[in-house]
This record gives sequence, C-alpha cells and structure tokens, in this order.
Amino acid sequence: MSDTAESRKFDVPAYVHELGVQARAAARAMGRAESCAKNTALNAIADAIVADQDRLKAENHKDLQAGRQKGLDSALLDRLKLTDARIEAMAEGLRQISALPDPVGAISGLEYRPSGIQVGRMRVPLGVIGIIYESRPNVTADAAALCLKSGNACILRGGSEALHSNQAIARCIEQGLGKAGLPSTAVQVVATTDRAAVGELLRLDKFIDVIVPRGGKGLIERVTGESKIPVIKHLHGVCHTYIDDYADIDKAVKVAFNAKTQRYGTCNTMETLLVAASIAERVLPILASQYQAEGVELRGCERTCVILDNIKPASDADWDEEYLAPILSIRLVDDLDAAMDHIDKHGSRHTDVIITENLARARRFLREVDSSSVMVNASSRFADGFEYGLGAEIGISTDKLHARGPVGLEGLTTLKYIVLGDGHIRT
Amino acid sequence: MSDTAESRKFDVPAYVHELGVQARAAARAMGRAESCAKNTALNAIADAIVADQDRLKAENHKDLQAGRQKGLDSALLDRLKLTDARIEAMAEGLRQISALPDPVGAISGLEYRPSGIQVGRMRVPLGVIGIIYESRPNVTADAAALCLKSGNACILRGGSEALHSNQAIARCIEQGLGKAGLPSTAVQVVATTDRAAVGELLRLDKFIDVIVPRGGKGLIERVTGESKIPVIKHLHGVCHTYIDDYADIDKAVKVAFNAKTQRYGTCNTMETLLVAASIAERVLPILASQYQAEGVELRGCERTCVILDNIKPASDADWDEEYLAPILSIRLVDDLDAAMDHIDKHGSRHTDVIITENLARARRFLREVDSSSVMVNASSRFADGFEYGLGAEIGISTDKLHARGPVGLEGLTTLKYIVLGDGHIRT
Repeated sequence: MSDTAESRKFDVPAYVHELGVQARAAARAMGRAESCAKNTALNAIADAIVADQDRLKAENHKDLQAGRQKGLDSALLDRLKLTDARIEAMAEGLRQISALPDPVGAISGLEYRPSGIQVGRMRVPLGVIGIIYESRPNVTADAAALCLKSGNACILRGGSEALHSNQAIARCIEQGLGKAGLPSTAVQVVATTDRAAVGELLRLDKFIDVIVPRGGKGLIERVTGESKIPVIKHLHGVCHTYIDDYADIDKAVKVAFNAKTQRYGTCNTMETLLVAASIAERVLPILASQYQAEGVELRGCERTCVILDNIKPASDADWDEEYLAPILSIRLVDDLDAAMDHIDKHGSRHTDVIITENLARARRFLREVDSSSVMVNASSRFADGFEYGLGAEIGISTDKLHARGPVGLEGLTTLKYIVLGDGHIRT
Repeated sequence: MSDTAESRKFDVPAYVHELGVQARAAARAMGRAESCAKNTALNAIADAIVADQDRLKAENHKDLQAGRQKGLDSALLDRLKLTDARIEAMAEGLRQISALPDPVGAISGLEYRPSGIQVGRMRVPLGVIGIIYESRPNVTADAAALCLKSGNACILRGGSEALHSNQAIARCIEQGLGKAGLPSTAVQVVATTDRAAVGELLRLDKFIDVIVPRGGKGLIERVTGESKIPVIKHLHGVCHTYIDDYADIDKAVKVAFNAKTQRYGTCNTMETLLVAASIAERVLPILASQYQAEGVELRGCERTCVILDNIKPASDADWDEEYLAPILSIRLVDDLDAAMDHIDKHGSRHTDVIITENLARARRFLREVDSSSVMVNASSRFADGFEYGLGAEIGISTDKLHARGPVGLEGLTTLKYIVLGDGHIRT
C-alpha cells in the first residue's frame, strides 16, 4: 500500500476514494467472518508485533528524529515513542481483545407476534469505521483490534509525525489478517501525511459509516464541523462531585480527594466540587488541607472563601473550565436542586457524582442528572471502559445518540431487525 | 404562543431561539416526570381532541380553503383533511401510547465489578427532539405523544399548509399537559409559516438533541445537508424479495405477491424481485399472471424476458428505483451470492427478504444482508412498528447509528451509565 502510494504522482482524492471502495468490499467479508478467524488474526498480529520489535523501533526512530528536527515538545515526543514495554503492551492489548466475547450475530428478543411471524434483533457490525487520531502509534494497533473484533473494516489516519511507525504496525496487521484468511484491506492505514486526506475521508459518506476522532478539542471540532458522516466523539469532561448534606464525611473526603488527585490529565477527573452549605464547615477544611498538601490549587466561590480563607476566589469562567491540571474550583450550594442546576448549566454531561447516605437524594440524582455516567459514592475516575467491564474502549462518547459513555465493542455495532416466517403475508 | 407570535413584529431567529430555551427547560421536568403524569396528559389530550372536534374541523377548513386557492393537488388536500374518523383515530392513537410501557428509568445489567462498584445502564430520554414534517395534522398529535411518553420535550414544525389545524391541535395538547401538571412548553408547535424557521431549528444544536424529518426525499436531503444536529432519518426503501432455488413455490408466490400488491405507496413494498435461475421457469409464469391480473407493470432483465415474453425490458436505472407504484422489476440471478451482491449494490438497506426452505441459505442471508430488516419467508410489508410490537413509530430509520428500522419509544431514548459505590476510590 505505502509503496504504491508513494511511487505514483500522488492524487489524494483518488487514493482516499480507493481506500473507501476497498474498505466497503472488505466490510462484507468481515461481517460474515467467524469469531475464530478474527481471534486468529488478533493473535497473529500480536505475534508479528513482538517478532518485528526491532524493525518497529527502527521505523519509530525515524519519526522521533524527524520530530526532534521539527521541534516537537517533549510530551509529544514521549507519546510518539515506542519502547520495548510499549510494544509488549500493544501485543497484550491485542490478545486481550481476542479473549473478549464476540458481539456480532447475537440475537435478542426473538418473539412471536400475533401475526405469527417471529421478530428479534441481531447485533451486526456498523460496516466501515474511519478513525482519525494524533501521533500515538499504539492507537493504530488498539483501534484496528477493536474494529476487527467487532467485524468492521476500518481506515486509520494517524498523526503525520507517526507515519513510519504506523506503516510498520500496518505491515504487522496485514500479516496477521493474511494468516487468518481475512482480507488485507480490512484495516487500511492511510499512507500519506497530506492533510487533505482528512478532508477527503470526511466526505466519503458513500463508503464510511462512522468517523471516530481521537485527540484534542481542535481535531474534534474540525471533524464534527466538516464531516458528512455521523461522528462518535468525545468532546471534554467538566466533571462534578456534589457532597450532599447527608454525606458520610469520611467517604466524602476519600472520594473527592481521589476524584481530583488520582490523575490530573484525564477527562473523568473532577474539576468542580459542589458542597451543600450545611455540611461545608465540617468537610471543606479537612479536604482543603489534603488538597493543599498534594499541591492542588483551590479556587472558591464567595461562601467557600469565608470557610477557607487562604484560597483564591473563583471567576465566572472557572465553572466551565476543564483544567486537566492540579486546580479545583469549589462552590457551596444550598441544596440538591441547586447542585443539579449548576451541573446542568456548567457540566459537559460526562461524569457527575453525588456523595450521600440518603436514598431519596441518590435516586433523584441518578435519574435527573443528564450525563453519560452518573455515580453515587464513587470516584468519577471509575468512568472508563476497563472499570466498567467493557474490556477495552475506543473512547468515551459525550454524544447522546448511539453510544454514550465508554465505547467498547458493542458501540462499534448496531442492531438490525430479523423476521422469521413460513409464508406469512400481511393482510 | 401563536397570539404572541403573530402580534409582534416577527423576528424568526429570536422566536426559534426562545423555543429552544423553553424546550431545554421543559426537558428537565419531562425527564423526571412520573409515568402516571405522562399518561394522564396523553388521555387528557385525547379527550380535548374529541371535545374540540368542531373547532378542529373549522380550523382545518381554513387550511383546506387556502390550499384549494393555492392549487394544492388532491392527494395533498386529502392528507390535509381532518374528518371525524381521523380525529377519532388521533385520539385513539394517543390512548394507545398511554397504554404502552414507559421506557424511561429502566435499569439494565447492574452488576458488581471487581473493584466493588456496581455498574449498570439506565434508559433516559434524549432531551429535546425537533420534528419537521409535511402537511398531515395527525402527525402533530402522534409525534407529540411519542415524545411525551418517552420523557422528551419537543418542537414540532409541520407543513405551512396545515398551520391552523396544527395550532388547534397544539391547544388541545397544551390543555392536556396542564391537566397533568406538566409544563406547557414540553410540546411547542412552531407558530409561523416562515420557512426560515426550519433553518433556524437546524442550527439550534445548543438546545435540540436530535432532529427527525418526516416527509419526502427533498425535505430529508435538505435537513441532513443543513443540520448541525444529529438526524434520525428515513431516506427511501428499495426492498427486494429473493426467491431461492430451495423455495417452496406456493409460499414464494404468496409472499412475493403480497409484498408488491398489498400497498404500492409504502416504503416496505417490494420494488425488485430476484429469482434463482433454476427455479424461475416454475415460479415466474404463475407470479406474472397474478401481477398482471392486478395491473402491475413488469420490467424484466434479459433472462426474465425469455421466460415472460410479454413484458418490458428493464433498464439499468430500474434496479435503483423506488417506484411506489404498481411497477415491479424482475431479475434472474445465478445463486444466493449473486442475489446478495445485487442487494448490496442496488438496495437502500431498508428491508430485504429471502424465500427458502434451506436453513443454511436462510442463515447466511440473515447475517450477511446489511439492511434494517432482514426476513425469511415473510412479506416485506411486515416492516412496521405495529407489526414488530413497538406499539407506534415515529418513522423507519435507514440510518445505522442509534436507531435502525422502525423507531418507537425506545428509539427516542438513550442509555446512561450509573455507578453505585460506598466510598469506592480508584487506585
């Protein structure tokens, strides 16, 4: 693929169109592939990645050198780098996905109707999935594995800084598919760094069923703005923990501390702490001293600053901010309704938590807060495909339609109706 | 609403924006509304519609008169007309929807994870639904009822020719909502015929969660082209019946006749008949004489025209045509694979049928044909929300994401994750 692509005078629209045609054809073969063929492919790709470790590192070295010359920052270079441990982790991820149950073909709710026909639903692949992501080579293997197991064909377009690494991984994937007798075009990794290829992919609505952008807000806004194809996207996470006046203080402190400090840069990290006014004087001083010992900057509303007199006041902008950093905004609220109003106005509908021992409060919060994950007495950091038992995830969707929250294999499938009759007609 | 709307100097963007703000606020109240309040509203709307029968007919008469002056064709005028029987049917539809189970709040799969948290999913409303439809007043009541029962707020924009009828129905809906203590803004019927209102609705992505266009292909293409909001759409139905060489001739004739002739203008009507070459001489002459007796025009491929020498040859364009008329294209195919290739190339992924007594063939067809409904030995005319037991439908989706096939109450909801812990933190 990459040889052809590089040797001809490069016509990006024609090249991308061809990827689409091939993916659509491969999707039919993948839709009827048996589980054991798909699992054989996944394990063979894992083997090839381990066997090709030296070549992968050599190709990755080219990307790293080019990246240094281009002056990429150290965080980017770190994400780009393939170490032995990361290569092993990629292979392990593939093997784990092969061990997950195959969602394709499962029939649910098959029931007789009064007319005599049987009606049910069968879980089937979406078809062709386009994934656009930044320069992390491991995503190439992860995304390919999830699409393959769910019976989809995919077109992967990784960040241009990872071109050599991604093409090297693509060759391992091709080998694995070949060993299982599956079409090599079931996974196609775009072999050009020309950014026009992204625009072409987004117009390929004839061939691609869904686009999954993985990366920063800029990428996601570009994709949703331009795409003619439905998008499963993860926008951002402004997550709240509300400490209700019926909270157990020890649990509140433990959970609110963990939700902020266990990792700062993740979308399910708490960004705003809401505290019922009547419990604030008992819980905030304990929490504040723990946060401050950890180096977390606190920004409080007026009433918070009365209780915690050594912190910065929060500005209006703070309530909408996804810090992804050791900063926390804190607001006192009068009651559960005020907390839910704040979440409705400022939240990003990702993950929100109530800490309470009161069943009526928990029941209302669970039903009324409109977020992809709603929790009682647990850290928002649990909002994750592995913790939820999905086995692996392609991302966390902040959309409401189709797939909401962590998106695993099931989110890459859809349900079609099946009808069984014996010569039944409608009268 | 309509009085305010008509008396001020009309600012369409501001008016539509206000609808959005009010709908978003109403959506929160609807999301937490109890089933009995929603059912009370549905039955009270039905009562109001029956009680207001004379006023409804008087308002409808204004629309009909204006329509005649504008020179609307008789089919359009017929769809616009409210008769006593149609008013009774609207009320009956509302009562049927009140009798359906409430999907909102159902929790599924709540299981303990190794970390000790419980994870499950709760079915919740989508939020705010925008529905754009043509001039059939009964859709106003049907769509309002489905949105109301599924806990959503909605903004309804019916065809301008039905303005007076729709506003009269809107007043009945408002009465019913009031009787149940639900916000009157849970159902808002756009009170202007200005077409700019549609464009404004499609840009209201801050307030509307999903747009459902109901109507002809032109409307649906405009909506999908312009909308910034996810769309659940029904595009068109090019449905196939494939008579396999293992078909029972009697069942094949019965089903294929019904699939074409039971109604001509519906999306689930068969448009192309595929016949295995080896069985064609036995089945086609019988079927052709039945179709011709019914006045169905047949258009055949070359090989078909050898067997049926009194029919028109089909052109290439015939295989992609949704006739919605007493016309049928017929093609001979060599085997199951050729039939599925034809369906993949020319079908619209709506509803496709195999007639066979062979289990292996049925099994392959069910799995491999990528359509919203796939059937064995049953008429494609069964693809319908009532026949499938959904109780009522807002349309038949030809999309793959979110809702595929007939869309009932469940299609107007989504699943959020819920997590229950007791002070659990992530380590």
